[in-house]
Amino acid sequence: MNDLKNSVIFSKGDKMPQPYSENFIGQAYLNMLSTGGDEFNCPIGNVTFEPGCRNSWHCHPGGQILLVTGGRGWYQAEGEAARELRAGDVVKIPSDRKHWHGAAQDSWFSHLSIETNCQKGPAKWLEPVTDAEYQQLR
Amino acid sequence: MNDLKNSVIFSKGDKMPQPYSENFIGQAYLNMLSTGGDEFNCPIGNVTFEPGCRNSWHCHPGGQILLVTGGRGWYQAEGEAARELRAGDVVKIPSDRKHWHGAAQDSWFSHLSIETNCQKGPAKWLEPVTDAEYQQLR
Repeated sequence: MNDLKNSVIFSKGDKMPQPYSENFIGQAYLNMLSTGGDEFNCPIGNVTFEPGCRNSWHCHPGGQILLVTGGRGWYQAEGEAARELRAGDVVKIPSDRKHWHGAAQDSWFSHLSIETNCQKGPAKWLEPVTDAEYQQLR
Repeated sequence: MNDLKNSVIFSKGDKMPQPYSENFIGQAYLNMLSTGGDEFNCPIGNVTFEPGCRNSWHCHPGGQILLVTGGRGWYQAEGEAARELRAGDVVKIPSDRKHWHGAAQDSWFSHLSIETNCQKGPAKWLEPVTDAEYQQLR
């Protein structure tokens, strides 16, 4: 199993706070590098997932870009096959596309999350990714 | 001297193209991870500077955020001391703040550049950073 200590470019921050943590299965960490409440209008979070950790299905009204910085994980949009992710991968998630992302079962995973067009509002959180859906991903 | 090969998370891309290359002293590389011409409105470039390479003084009408991914470099805003940068550092450059950034004399340097509020227009490029200004930075 890969080691969380390898996630060293941007510090992993604190355990995912409430209420966001309710939208994750397993332990995630969040370090906000830029908030959405200033002149930059560009929320940037460094998100680190422990092995097996993933978020629930959700949508971003203004879209989202993921920049993968380490480990191995998954991105899945509704109706599509899951896409395996490794360091250097870029995922562009269109406005209101239902999706989830998270670590592989046997690896930590970290990505930068950039919420684009954040004036369109926060993420809309939906149902969890079930164990049956997740455990078929290797 | 550190090795450019360490800049491996996001591929370093091609030599900085014209006309942008006219605003750099030394060799830089650019890999656009997201362009500004789509629904995300979020230009993201992976910029890699060889040792001694820096860009000219410039301003971004909508601001810019730098996320440092490797090496050692400098950021300087007009009227302020230069700030040394290493992996994990974040620089938030306000709208129309005159500044430059680049590598240290003895190290390559790479950062992600996020142009915020890009609808406010492209960078305004100004005079080069002189050798006298640059060579005093150690």
